[in-house]
Amino acid sequence: MHNEFKKFFVDELQDIYSAEVQIIQGLPKMIAAAESPELREAFEAHLKETRGQVDRLKDIFALIGEPAKEKRCLAMEGLLREADEAISAFKRSFVLDAALITKAQRIEHYEIATYGALRTFADHLDLPEVSDLLQDTLEEEASADKKLTKIAEGGFFSTGVNQKANG
Amino acid sequence: MHNEFKKFFVDELQDIYSAEVQIIQGLPKMIAAAESPELREAFEAHLKETRGQVDRLKDIFALIGEPAKEKRCLAMEGLLREADEAISAFKRSFVLDAALITKAQRIEHYEIATYGALRTFADHLDLPEVSDLLQDTLEEEASADKKLTKIAEGGFFSTGVNQKANG
Repeated sequence: MHNEFKKFFVDELQDIYSAEVQIIQGLPKMIAAAESPELREAFEAHLKETRGQVDRLKDIFALIGEPAKEKRCLAMEGLLREADEAISAFKRSFVLDAALITKAQRIEHYEIATYGALRTFADHLDLPEVSDLLQDTLEEEASADKKLTKIAEGGFFSTGVNQKANG
Repeated sequence: MHNEFKKFFVDELQDIYSAEVQIIQGLPKMIAAAESPELREAFEAHLKETRGQVDRLKDIFALIGEPAKEKRCLAMEGLLREADEAISAFKRSFVLDAALITKAQRIEHYEIATYGALRTFADHLDLPEVSDLLQDTLEEEASADKKLTKIAEGGFFSTGVNQKANG
């Protein structure tokens, strides 16, 4: 394996490993802040899923013979800080839910972009087992994102927005 | 329009406006660091596109009667700092290109998530013109992301990775 390419690949794995650990720490606050039971359940399901994704990353580190180590993910730090700010800025309502959804979808998309790129590079590195594990997580992230879009498109928001029209 | 929902919507517009302005400042460094002409051209095209997206945001602010104002986007700050770190960590090579692609795709996905959510909320707010403008940008971002995936999947990388096998 090309040494510097492998270093890059391991760096990226450490970055997303740190991101996932930060998400596990950040999600409970988002769960507590969510007004709609549907959104709360989606976040709870994703917290459980994220724990499985961390285990998958540990398996990947083992497969490539590297220690499972975190490299502080600055982007996830910013993304989660924005979610915190929304929780402070809006009282518990459909508006905060809307804000939580947009913040959570950015978190999902950070992961979609990362896992997608890592899977492509795992293919270049001829690591089919690693590629399959990354693909599994990628699919979970994409489906978590779609679930949030469905909630955002749902009746809950239209009702909220219109209920207090000109309010 | 529900007052607090509108406040949230304007906040998010200010966030992505700041993000776009930061991207315009950050992209030239990424263009200069890219090794592959294909990647450099993709970044150059996206810089031009981003300027158009900023204009579109100004139109949206005008349509909803709000001043075009930036609210510092912390997540984009983190995303661009990670791109900077990659430029320092790797010498100009296909490895740095791989790193630049992963960082750029996270930037794209930040925007895809944001514009997607904003468009949904513009629909709830019954702002069809705003929704159409957001949709235009969303499509540009999605196509910029696909272009980067195509470059990452391309021969340039396979050749690089295999050329120095066990190197």
